[in-house]
Amino acid sequence: MSATEAATETDMATGTETLRVADFARLDVARRGRTGVPEVVFAQGKTVEQTLRLLAELRRADPAAPALATRCPAEVLAAAPTAFDAAPVQVDPVARTVTVGPLPAPRGAVAVVTAGTCDLPVAGECRATLAALGVGAFVVDDVGVAGIGRLFAQLPRLERADCAVVVAGMDGALPSVVTGLLRAPVVGVPTSVGYGVAAGGLAALGAMLATCAPGLTVVNIDNGFGAAVHAAKVVRAVHGA
Amino acid sequence: MSATEAATETDMATGTETLRVADFARLDVARRGRTGVPEVVFAQGKTVEQTLRLLAELRRADPAAPALATRCPAEVLAAAPTAFDAAPVQVDPVARTVTVGPLPAPRGAVAVVTAGTCDLPVAGECRATLAALGVGAFVVDDVGVAGIGRLFAQLPRLERADCAVVVAGMDGALPSVVTGLLRAPVVGVPTSVGYGVAAGGLAALGAMLATCAPGLTVVNIDNGFGAAVHAAKVVRAVHGA
Amino acid sequence: MSATEAATETDMATGTETLRVADFARLDVARRGRTGVPEVVFAQGKTVEQTLRLLAELRRADPAAPALATRCPAEVLAAAPTAFDAAPVQVDPVARTVTVGPLPAPRGAVAVVTAGTCDLPVAGECRATLAALGVGAFVVDDVGVAGIGRLFAQLPRLERADCAVVVAGMDGALPSVVTGLLRAPVVGVPTSVGYGVAAGGLAALGAMLATCAPGLTVVNIDNGFGAAVHAAKVVRAVHGA
Amino acid sequence: MSATEAATETDMATGTETLRVADFARLDVARRGRTGVPEVVFAQGKTVEQTLRLLAELRRADPAAPALATRCPAEVLAAAPTAFDAAPVQVDPVARTVTVGPLPAPRGAVAVVTAGTCDLPVAGECRATLAALGVGAFVVDDVGVAGIGRLFAQLPRLERADCAVVVAGMDGALPSVVTGLLRAPVVGVPTSVGYGVAAGGLAALGAMLATCAPGLTVVNIDNGFGAAVHAAKVVRAVHGA
Amino acid sequence: MSATEAATETDMATGTETLRVADFARLDVARRGRTGVPEVVFAQGKTVEQTLRLLAELRRADPAAPALATRCPAEVLAAAPTAFDAAPVQVDPVARTVTVGPLPAPRGAVAVVTAGTCDLPVAGECRATLAALGVGAFVVDDVGVAGIGRLFAQLPRLERADCAVVVAGMDGALPSVVTGLLRAPVVGVPTSVGYGVAAGGLAALGAMLATCAPGLTVVNIDNGFGAAVHAAKVVRAVHGA
Amino acid sequence: MSATEAATETDMATGTETLRVADFARLDVARRGRTGVPEVVFAQGKTVEQTLRLLAELRRADPAAPALATRCPAEVLAAAPTAFDAAPVQVDPVARTVTVGPLPAPRGAVAVVTAGTCDLPVAGECRATLAALGVGAFVVDDVGVAGIGRLFAQLPRLERADCAVVVAGMDGALPSVVTGLLRAPVVGVPTSVGYGVAAGGLAALGAMLATCAPGLTVVNIDNGFGAAVHAAKVVRAVHGA
Amino acid sequence: MSATEAATETDMATGTETLRVADFARLDVARRGRTGVPEVVFAQGKTVEQTLRLLAELRRADPAAPALATRCPAEVLAAAPTAFDAAPVQVDPVARTVTVGPLPAPRGAVAVVTAGTCDLPVAGECRATLAALGVGAFVVDDVGVAGIGRLFAQLPRLERADCAVVVAGMDGALPSVVTGLLRAPVVGVPTSVGYGVAAGGLAALGAMLATCAPGLTVVNIDNGFGAAVHAAKVVRAVHGA
Amino acid sequence: MSATEAATETDMATGTETLRVADFARLDVARRGRTGVPEVVFAQGKTVEQTLRLLAELRRADPAAPALATRCPAEVLAAAPTAFDAAPVQVDPVARTVTVGPLPAPRGAVAVVTAGTCDLPVAGECRATLAALGVGAFVVDDVGVAGIGRLFAQLPRLERADCAVVVAGMDGALPSVVTGLLRAPVVGVPTSVGYGVAAGGLAALGAMLATCAPGLTVVNIDNGFGAAVHAAKVVRAVHGA
Repeated sequence: MSATEAATETDMATGTETLRVADFARLDVARRGRTGVPEVVFAQGKTVEQTLRLLAELRRADPAAPALATRCPAEVLAAAPTAFDAAPVQVDPVARTVTVGPLPAPRGAVAVVTAGTCDLPVAGECRATLAALGVGAFVVDDVGVAGIGRLFAQLPRLERADCAVVVAGMDGALPSVVTGLLRAPVVGVPTSVGYGVAAGGLAALGAMLATCAPGLTVVNIDNGFGAAVHAAKVVRAVHGA
Repeated sequence: MSATEAATETDMATGTETLRVADFARLDVARRGRTGVPEVVFAQGKTVEQTLRLLAELRRADPAAPALATRCPAEVLAAAPTAFDAAPVQVDPVARTVTVGPLPAPRGAVAVVTAGTCDLPVAGECRATLAALGVGAFVVDDVGVAGIGRLFAQLPRLERADCAVVVAGMDGALPSVVTGLLRAPVVGVPTSVGYGVAAGGLAALGAMLATCAPGLTVVNIDNGFGAAVHAAKVVRAVHGA
Repeated sequence: MSATEAATETDMATGTETLRVADFARLDVARRGRTGVPEVVFAQGKTVEQTLRLLAELRRADPAAPALATRCPAEVLAAAPTAFDAAPVQVDPVARTVTVGPLPAPRGAVAVVTAGTCDLPVAGECRATLAALGVGAFVVDDVGVAGIGRLFAQLPRLERADCAVVVAGMDGALPSVVTGLLRAPVVGVPTSVGYGVAAGGLAALGAMLATCAPGLTVVNIDNGFGAAVHAAKVVRAVHGA
Repeated sequence: MSATEAATETDMATGTETLRVADFARLDVARRGRTGVPEVVFAQGKTVEQTLRLLAELRRADPAAPALATRCPAEVLAAAPTAFDAAPVQVDPVARTVTVGPLPAPRGAVAVVTAGTCDLPVAGECRATLAALGVGAFVVDDVGVAGIGRLFAQLPRLERADCAVVVAGMDGALPSVVTGLLRAPVVGVPTSVGYGVAAGGLAALGAMLATCAPGLTVVNIDNGFGAAVHAAKVVRAVHGA
Repeated sequence: MSATEAATETDMATGTETLRVADFARLDVARRGRTGVPEVVFAQGKTVEQTLRLLAELRRADPAAPALATRCPAEVLAAAPTAFDAAPVQVDPVARTVTVGPLPAPRGAVAVVTAGTCDLPVAGECRATLAALGVGAFVVDDVGVAGIGRLFAQLPRLERADCAVVVAGMDGALPSVVTGLLRAPVVGVPTSVGYGVAAGGLAALGAMLATCAPGLTVVNIDNGFGAAVHAAKVVRAVHGA
Repeated sequence: MSATEAATETDMATGTETLRVADFARLDVARRGRTGVPEVVFAQGKTVEQTLRLLAELRRADPAAPALATRCPAEVLAAAPTAFDAAPVQVDPVARTVTVGPLPAPRGAVAVVTAGTCDLPVAGECRATLAALGVGAFVVDDVGVAGIGRLFAQLPRLERADCAVVVAGMDGALPSVVTGLLRAPVVGVPTSVGYGVAAGGLAALGAMLATCAPGLTVVNIDNGFGAAVHAAKVVRAVHGA
Repeated sequence: MSATEAATETDMATGTETLRVADFARLDVARRGRTGVPEVVFAQGKTVEQTLRLLAELRRADPAAPALATRCPAEVLAAAPTAFDAAPVQVDPVARTVTVGPLPAPRGAVAVVTAGTCDLPVAGECRATLAALGVGAFVVDDVGVAGIGRLFAQLPRLERADCAVVVAGMDGALPSVVTGLLRAPVVGVPTSVGYGVAAGGLAALGAMLATCAPGLTVVNIDNGFGAAVHAAKVVRAVHGA
Repeated sequence: MSATEAATETDMATGTETLRVADFARLDVARRGRTGVPEVVFAQGKTVEQTLRLLAELRRADPAAPALATRCPAEVLAAAPTAFDAAPVQVDPVARTVTVGPLPAPRGAVAVVTAGTCDLPVAGECRATLAALGVGAFVVDDVGVAGIGRLFAQLPRLERADCAVVVAGMDGALPSVVTGLLRAPVVGVPTSVGYGVAAGGLAALGAMLATCAPGLTVVNIDNGFGAAVHAAKVVRAVHGA
């Protein structure tokens, strides 16, 4: 195979199909059929050409769902709007995401809660992923526990969500408080904002894992994408997929 | 109030009720109404008398649900069967749980998967919690990736679950593999078995958080209880509560 | 000097006096004059004989204040009641403290708040230290954020304190919430209860240091003694000493 | 609400008021009434526009106190002097703070002690915060323990403080020595200067937490702001607020 | 000796010869005779002049084997093609390697497996090293466990290798799965791609060390070179050297 | 199936066979055919009954190879000699291994080198595993670098090995020195002996991973078993299997 | 060689002699001639028989110097007094050392300074090692910086030392203060006493390494032996050996 | 005092003199009289003006010794040659040091050993400091243990040193080997070169602290200055000062 072609490979034992792209990738095009969630391009550490090529291949292989890339560097965000002829392209510079193809109609509702303004980029990645997966979302921002009245004023809205994602960096306490108040499943996302022991997000991660609020689960630091996929699986289990 | 009585305290602003027990605890008796999950006794670090007293108070305050204690030391496991007159008591010595009161009829199905035989105590805590919460569960044990055919042979069973909990200590890889195969939401539970860099569970925790399998969420090391509560919230969202 | 005597040593330049005890200790008998807080015996890592001897020497050198030992092993707690003839002795087996000599009349009020029942030993060390220093204290226990209504019901009491000490292990969120509600200075004490990432107290410590609630300060894990000394200094600055 | 407006939200249960700003922040305008310390803008991770907007909203919502922003990037420091028409603006490029509005008359005295010249930026943040809160302060710089005579020469000045803040990076020993000499409460601030094991401030933080000097409390690495708020609460408890 | 000359030094006791280069290096020219693997230039932290000089000296001292430099900065990659007159020069900008001199005919076969596209630079360093050592290699890229069918489709190729090197950053699970499937020795190489707990490669390293798949050995994060040398020693033991 | 039976399960897609044992284990009986190394019982964290049962099942399922258990607690070591009727049983109390069945004739030679006397238990586990796998081994003990002449005196013996395993706790330097001297592949095993920063083995592990000696690979702390399996795979590749 | 004999091995290239003991040790009997310091038995992790045997062999091989064992478990301390017929035996139960043979006359003077009473066992190991090496020593105990006048009162004694060893666990500040006051070289020994972040000694170690006091060097936590050897080398360089 | 003046401050109790410089520093001008080593400017984290000013003040206060600045940024290195009129200035761009004033005649000899070429900057800081302190030094570079014959060839030179400083980053084994060969005291300096677990120098630091070679002491990562001061104190104790 030439270094620029794409071709399908098949595992004989299980019949799984893979899309071989040039000499650098194997797209798991069977993933949406298997798990409900399509393969997504993780753009960090890839060249601009690799990311755009993979978005185009995903779009071609599975026209029924939009193709999504996360953690896109500035060059990808700049090049994306004109890189895919017919398809509509959505670029979110704060969330650093690119979506190619029309968005599905949203079902269900995920509350994306943030402790502070600095947590908005990670919340944005979460919201963009939910949109690409056809799941409804609303953001409740800047309700950290230093002024806990802010959260209580938003409680009626939060109680309408099927699942809640709580994004917090310097305020690792917020997901615990939210989990103690809601009937819905809650996922915490630590963020890497902050300084000193908070820098990099390990303090927030530790606080969320050690929580005494039962049922809070956690994803990697800054992983708004992963929290969105988990929340989407919950919403689909509830509303059908 | 005397040191041995129990009495209700009320937050005037929100009307929240709390059960003050002697001079050592405040039971959050409003939790089941608020989140669907009742307060549970965390027995580690408490005296035998404190744990048994709190189980009795929970049982009295909320007769519609069984009272559960987790991480019970041997003395509690030994004393529990004869400590609550009329109520049926279930003691699981491997899971180290005590349940007081009749179990609700189970709804839905959670798959509790383990990598190895050593992970069974944590899986047991998960299963006992699910039973107390009225959620169905089945265990798929010892399917670590060193012999990955074991997992594939169980796939048809796993695909019937509403939610999967994957318990693994020395085999932090298993939850990633399972997440890449299932449509249901998956929660990973790292365990503290193992030695060297695996001792205490941090290596398994790191592997699960760093996973490239989208949608895997994680709870604290050995926290079978927390994973069960999250899974129960998912099952109830699907099957109603 | 013989190995069993005690004698005074003086720094010529500054005139500071020290009490040389046998061949193993130099008691800083000038500390109370200098900082308002007398030298205290840290019993961990000392023999029973060393601890009792140091308590007796402190009692003799400064009869105006009680002598205090913290982190006492069981042997010291057992031997203490009969080891000091005339003086009244207070032994707190939960806090693991021994106090020799009459307690001063308390001034001011420190609120000692705990997240859970397991945090009571550290709160006890804090309370016993405050008592020995002649500072008033009251305990508000088991008000962790998983059921945050418990805390709000106690707010009127908390607002009467000159200083608050918040003791929390698995609920590193509580000190942040308290700090966001009170006018008084707040000190957080992480505790080593818990398991997984919470074991040893580092997760709680990190959460408290990283807090977004302004003005929260922190002491070492399980250091109820140190928090009490800081709070006592605040109370004395307010009420005179 | 349009993305550029500001409006008040109220928690029905507790009557707490919050100021909703555009679509990115909720200012806790009730914080000064509740805790004595107004909400402050943490500029790191915010856009220049967000920081300036929040300063203006804080100034408008609470004209009786100056509005403060900490950890300002160079762009904010450059834009601030001309961004608020009538109000006096103070920019401290070393401390990286911006204060908008007239400073209150200072009450009390906080000693801000540094181990070395490199610790001056963090000391500056502490001093600027104290000024905005109406608390008097004086700096005693470069008295690290490698030449401990420098500290002793300043002792008479230090003894006049209501509270001491000790800022130290490569010299984690200094706060311990100071705490052993003063009657006033002491807060340590580790700084991130240094290299090797000192880089990032964890060695200094550990030394301060592990100290044998009773009563020393600690804040996050480089958190001159938090130490100032704690010290201000102490000063107000002493001198009234 | 002048600072620019090169001269041989000899250990009298053992007769070992070393090549002293100017005033900055001692090339271990006896290494190939002793271990089968020649000294290689680690270019990170060296000046461009030092790296090129050492390549030239190695080339001169041992004309029978190519001279290799790893971790070359851009300046070295740019300068290398014209720096060595007669010798053929191979520059790999992704792997950041420079090879001077004709490559030996390859013997044996090492499978270099990667979890994702981002792991290709480290795989490249491994492949370039194998080529310089005269060992055959083939790359199997992007077969991470999130879509495990990709790996199974490549199993027949993998089973033909004498040794396998598995390069993985965010997917620390892959080396375990591969080790459980192959008869050949397997070496894992964690990579530093990823973010949050995966950043820097420690999560992948921990997962590989903690593995339950027997026989997996590991090298330092990003150390494609070290894995190649180990694999080359295995191939030579099998095919002779 | 009853809780005490054993039965074969088959993955339909790949035909992989697994031996289901009672309700606690799935033995990967196909592993020897697939990788050349049979499933081995990791006894830590299992009950005595579980370990003995699994040894018996392995013995029955694959009579051509001995069954091995590692990390056996004292109870297993005591019970093993009389637990398997006809089969010869080897118990090594220092290595904490049990082998059931006749040992194969050894092929090839692995040098097991230790830095100090305290490293002998881990070296023993390595040697016992090699014996069970039919690979020859010889131990070179107590040749740490503090007296490096000890190592040089053994060099002629070491040069005869097909592969070397170097076991070292407080002397993380030894594997680097050995790797720089031998033509054979070398595997390092850090051990958990020692104190201070050496306690637990992390310092030795770090030293081995960071080594400048090319080609050294590493296994988990105290993992003599894993090093033996890797070495056995190398020996079989050389001598056939 | 039989497993119980001892015999000399020689490295042909360098002529280095080693004493092979039974099948578990190689005593570096040439060490005293090479470095001035004889081989010493590290008893931790050895059996009682191994330790006593090695002491006897060292005594026999080098009658001009006493044989020393450190970190001896209680069994060794109990058995030692009657295990070596003619030779005088010194057992120090606090320092956990055994010395066999007459002590050399001491030369020079090393000051062994401790921060607190709990640091005395490590100081004892240091003193016992110095005695075995024929170096004079005096202990200055319990002069931690919380009451810094204690240290200043001892300064005249400290200034007479050739070298100072400062042993400190919870008071990592002390070695920095001492280094800033003395003309002699200073070695810090962190100890593992303490709790929370101080537990295990890492906080004290970090404080000593990060110190701003120039010239302080450090050994492993609790390594009184290593500090003594360094100090002895200094004393010998000064006074001849 | 104006912000630009310098003036002497005196501690009344001890008579210690300090030089107050502008409003940012207190030079410990009594340090050379007290410890034999003058105050040195740590340039990292200071402005160019601060560093040059402090060098000038040190030069003025103590004309008998050169003034030294370490860790100088490029701007200081560029400005230094023309900043001090009459005095000779030495700038070492690799070591990043500036020395103002004539160097004293060297006494004694310190061997500065490096493992690799990348360690030369730290070795340079060590050598420049020794030169400023009037101590002789010679460098033995690039003798890492991967080719240990290089070290043995230099042994005769090393044996002539009064003290040895061993600088090593990726080869933490070298100081252990050197310590096992020399009669002189040895100080290890870990460096921050390397990648993966070696990045930042913690692996090398751990290896040196955990060493089994008795008497090796260690300074902070990259602290060539501190090692030089310790070595200088040893040389002066031997040769007089």
